[in-house]
Amino acid sequence: MYPKELRSKIAKGEFTRPTAGECPGYIQMNMVALPREYAKRFEAFAKENSKAIPVLEIIHEGHLSKVLAPGADILNEIPKYNILKDGVVVETVTDITPYYNPDLVFFLIGCSFSFETALIENGMPLRHVDQQKNVAMYRTNIALKPVEGFAGEMVVSMRPIKKEKVADACVVTSHFPRMHGSPIQVGYPEMIGINDVSKPDYGDAIEIKADEIPLFWPCGVTPQNVITAMKLPFAITHAPGHMFVTDKKDSEYYE
Amino acid sequence: MYPKELRSKIAKGEFTRPTAGECPGYIQMNMVALPREYAKRFEAFAKENSKAIPVLEIIHEGHLSKVLAPGADILNEIPKYNILKDGVVVETVTDITPYYNPDLVFFLIGCSFSFETALIENGMPLRHVDQQKNVAMYRTNIALKPVEGFAGEMVVSMRPIKKEKVADACVVTSHFPRMHGSPIQVGYPEMIGINDVSKPDYGDAIEIKADEIPLFWPCGVTPQNVITAMKLPFAITHAPGHMFVTDKKDSEYYE
Repeated sequence: MYPKELRSKIAKGEFTRPTAGECPGYIQMNMVALPREYAKRFEAFAKENSKAIPVLEIIHEGHLSKVLAPGADILNEIPKYNILKDGVVVETVTDITPYYNPDLVFFLIGCSFSFETALIENGMPLRHVDQQKNVAMYRTNIALKPVEGFAGEMVVSMRPIKKEKVADACVVTSHFPRMHGSPIQVGYPEMIGINDVSKPDYGDAIEIKADEIPLFWPCGVTPQNVITAMKLPFAITHAPGHMFVTDKKDSEYYE
Repeated sequence: MYPKELRSKIAKGEFTRPTAGECPGYIQMNMVALPREYAKRFEAFAKENSKAIPVLEIIHEGHLSKVLAPGADILNEIPKYNILKDGVVVETVTDITPYYNPDLVFFLIGCSFSFETALIENGMPLRHVDQQKNVAMYRTNIALKPVEGFAGEMVVSMRPIKKEKVADACVVTSHFPRMHGSPIQVGYPEMIGINDVSKPDYGDAIEIKADEIPLFWPCGVTPQNVITAMKLPFAITHAPGHMFVTDKKDSEYYE
């Protein structure tokens, strides 16, 4: 399925699953929408924390993508959205048209799903993709650099990798610096404040077999964690794992 | 000390130590010298196994480097050499002039010492450098691709890396593909046939602290292991850890 077809199904409400493994070869994006009064400060914050929050497109006027998927409507071409009030998810919806107003600024943020095709093609099959599950995500104790009142801790995604392929996984993903790049932690969840790897804070629990170790990458769910910690009055985000699938190819972001 | 000065001291017999940590920023080379009748086949073998045996210069006529350290004499500007007969080290010397004949072909092979400056500069201090020891090296069960009668197993070097820096170590060293590049194994020596990491086959034993794990890189001592396994009638190599220090900068080999 081409991204355009998938997004068309999403717009019609026919696809509401996590997007891991969909449209292999095309990059996927996290989304954060904020009222203008917060957007400028968030942009500065993201710039200082670009390993966790790499911003690839900002939609200032209207609600159509111009760069990553020209013409795609950000209001209903993502499978699921979270509506946050005072930092709390009050609703999960498949269409945010009722919440739209021209004051909203949309940020599209690099996502580690974008390097999964490269991992698979380099001999690292991914269990959450094979099982059509969501990736496992965790809050950590890794502090972000505070900027203009924005502050908080990093969220990470986890993928179990065969012990003999750990170096390959680090190297392959390092070639996608705008999609979080190389892992932030290899093999020791407790070092970043994850006490029980079988209980993710977002997404699905993913088994780690005896011949594998868990690798952790910065995750674009980080802004949601920050918005919650800061109790921002209003924000909209994608629902974790339910991404904006773009028309851009992975290979364009390989550095 | 500049490489030229170090090589001059070596030629005078004033420096006979391992070269790890010497002349930071300059690349260091493994050396293998073979009679012409074996050299062509070895060259083909090395090409097929270039992660372990990346050949950077071949000296066919005479004994002076033309590329990596123009004018340097390969016969006495390496701190220590091994003389191998029927695959066995029969002597370790500091000058191979008595063994020279025009039939010998010299191979200069990339060495992981060349990326150590990059590791240190990226916040990964190296214990063997700090303690002025030789790096720890091990025979493994990783089979090389056999070519024209040459065959054998890979030798690896080991460096303990802080748990939180493992991904960085993989990524930093991957930028030096002609110096073995990224690790071949991360954290599990038993998976590559190393049963006791405290007992290296070459070099010095290096402590691994509780907050570190051992990373293993392909090593340019691999040809010596092959020569021994094949019981080649005659060969000369550098003594493990005692490298040919060139005039070329690391940065020229960063890719």
